[in-house]
Amino acid sequence: MPWHESTSVNVDLGEKSYLIRIGDNLLEYAGQMIAEIMPGSKCVIVTDENVARLYLEILQESLASQNIEHAEIIVAPGEASKSFEVLQSVIGQILDTRFERNDVVIGLGGGVIGDLAGFAASMIRRGMNFVQIPTSLLAQVDSSVGGKTGINAVQGKNLIGAFLQPRLVIADSGLLKSLSKREFRAGYAEMVKYGLIDQPEFFRQLEENWVDVFSFGNLLVEAIAVSCKAKAKIVAEDQFERGCRALLNLGHTFGHALEAATGYDTNRLVHGESVAIGIILAHEFSNRMNLCDADSVERVRHHFTQVGLPTSIADIPGEMPDADKLLEYIFQDKKVSRGVLTFILTKGVGKSYIANNVTATEIQAFLKEKL
Amino acid sequence: MPWHESTSVNVDLGEKSYLIRIGDNLLEYAGQMIAEIMPGSKCVIVTDENVARLYLEILQESLASQNIEHAEIIVAPGEASKSFEVLQSVIGQILDTRFERNDVVIGLGGGVIGDLAGFAASMIRRGMNFVQIPTSLLAQVDSSVGGKTGINAVQGKNLIGAFLQPRLVIADSGLLKSLSKREFRAGYAEMVKYGLIDQPEFFRQLEENWVDVFSFGNLLVEAIAVSCKAKAKIVAEDQFERGCRALLNLGHTFGHALEAATGYDTNRLVHGESVAIGIILAHEFSNRMNLCDADSVERVRHHFTQVGLPTSIADIPGEMPDADKLLEYIFQDKKVSRGVLTFILTKGVGKSYIANNVTATEIQAFLKEKL
Repeated sequence: MPWHESTSVNVDLGEKSYLIRIGDNLLEYAGQMIAEIMPGSKCVIVTDENVARLYLEILQESLASQNIEHAEIIVAPGEASKSFEVLQSVIGQILDTRFERNDVVIGLGGGVIGDLAGFAASMIRRGMNFVQIPTSLLAQVDSSVGGKTGINAVQGKNLIGAFLQPRLVIADSGLLKSLSKREFRAGYAEMVKYGLIDQPEFFRQLEENWVDVFSFGNLLVEAIAVSCKAKAKIVAEDQFERGCRALLNLGHTFGHALEAATGYDTNRLVHGESVAIGIILAHEFSNRMNLCDADSVERVRHHFTQVGLPTSIADIPGEMPDADKLLEYIFQDKKVSRGVLTFILTKGVGKSYIANNVTATEIQAFLKEKL
Repeated sequence: MPWHESTSVNVDLGEKSYLIRIGDNLLEYAGQMIAEIMPGSKCVIVTDENVARLYLEILQESLASQNIEHAEIIVAPGEASKSFEVLQSVIGQILDTRFERNDVVIGLGGGVIGDLAGFAASMIRRGMNFVQIPTSLLAQVDSSVGGKTGINAVQGKNLIGAFLQPRLVIADSGLLKSLSKREFRAGYAEMVKYGLIDQPEFFRQLEENWVDVFSFGNLLVEAIAVSCKAKAKIVAEDQFERGCRALLNLGHTFGHALEAATGYDTNRLVHGESVAIGIILAHEFSNRMNLCDADSVERVRHHFTQVGLPTSIADIPGEMPDADKLLEYIFQDKKVSRGVLTFILTKGVGKSYIANNVTATEIQAFLKEKL
């Protein structure tokens, strides 16, 4: 497909607005797209060893075809690269290129690379240009919108970071073919989330067409676009996460606690899986509070089961801590403000809302039942 | 003076607007001022050993008087604390307090502390609240406005940083009594700069009343306020330094090169002194280019000499490099974009403007004459 015919989603943030280009085989046009909006800029690519092996050359050739001067920084794959040490090293290597504020940092990779490269770009000369080329489904539908970047601290994940909006996101659906089924499914859970927040029709379409999405059919690009649009709408209303953006945390408060409880062991649980289980728990809890009908809970559970996602804490291999310990993890989450728990609850499929009145006792009683 | 009668300058940045409170003996009211705009927030104070000895207790007592829970982080004094290592340590200590995003980081100190504490605050949970209590004249009239924070890299000063607007700045002119004459003068050079950019009447008042300012008279608070207002006006027009904010660099392109040439040895040259010499060089160069009359150059030189500031490269103790090497330092400065030098030139007192057409050859010839 010619790249200028690709699907585009505009993330409307005033003077910080940018386009997400979505389509098959877009990577080879990265040079043209970058030259079009930032003519004359040099590019430094930040990527990891796995992604570099698969896609770095295509990107380099695309930049070279437009005579764009470029450099590469390759880090180890995995969450451990979201550290102060790797950040410092990446920043040092970018500064060594002597590229300037108007030049570009490209993050080529999944969520870890996007967070790390974006955070580095936000700091160098107080903000270089940033282009994101997400290579996982999760990164394409989630971290490509919203401008969150960051690293992990000893005290917790993503506690150190910045907001930096990219100048451009290139979501090449063709790159997703190299993902494992498990990684693809994990990203799919975040797609479903958008339907469950406030787009019931999108959830219905996914129920109907998920096989097409999973087999890289025509609907994959459309489903990515709908997801990006759904997130972009919420982010545009609340860029710095002071209000409605909390809706995006549907399933995440439970989910983060589960991830923490497994010690972030991705052999046991990856982020998207924790979100799937978290979404079911949020629906079940809402049902218990007489907010959500049992049919909605079952409908969501059925769909997750159909695509092969876990739906209960019991689906996580290995020992899990008790309800009190899980509650502690929930309280350690960023989303606790002045000791009050903010939960995303739901009144049914596509009817999620922000609840500020959930008590620890209610959550504890609920978790005790579930464990 | 009751604190609510203190002079206030509003820095108008839309929803990021904030007040600079200026007056004698304001530090003891810090707790009230913070409680007024951020009720219920906890505070972590970042300061250095020297400032802590002089003023930490006053601030702690003021916070305690309002029942504000608080903690302290004390770093070594001096530019060396603007490093990745100290930043990481400060961030770790702030996270250890378990304070939340709505809590406050207070930077109590000079420019180094403001830059370091502000940068840490910008990153933690992607942005905690920040209150600045500048204790040097330079910090009160310069870094308290504009939201620039950051640290130094091996590759250059201030190359890593973020924009973070404080929620409040408390500029207590009484704290300046503990400054050495040399430090006070260095801050004064930046005050004069605002007059020379576009406020000729302010420059005239300083010429007339500098003795009052230097002896902590009534005009000191007013002069600080005029300076903050002057900078606030420019920053409000160009928050992210893409246009007219460059005016604030009057004297700084030459100045930074001189600082670099002395290896940032503050025994030989402090920042404000380098700015004073840089301002004279900018006026002389403008005169050489037939932009600025010789009388204006002499008027500025006379005033700097009067207050005891250096006015020529020859005033810097020790060996200085030759013109070619100085030119190299100028090219390494952040303010070089796409290889083009941006200089702030002047058509006379209070008539500065941004010049994008200065060539390296012209600067080189000028510097050869000066050395």
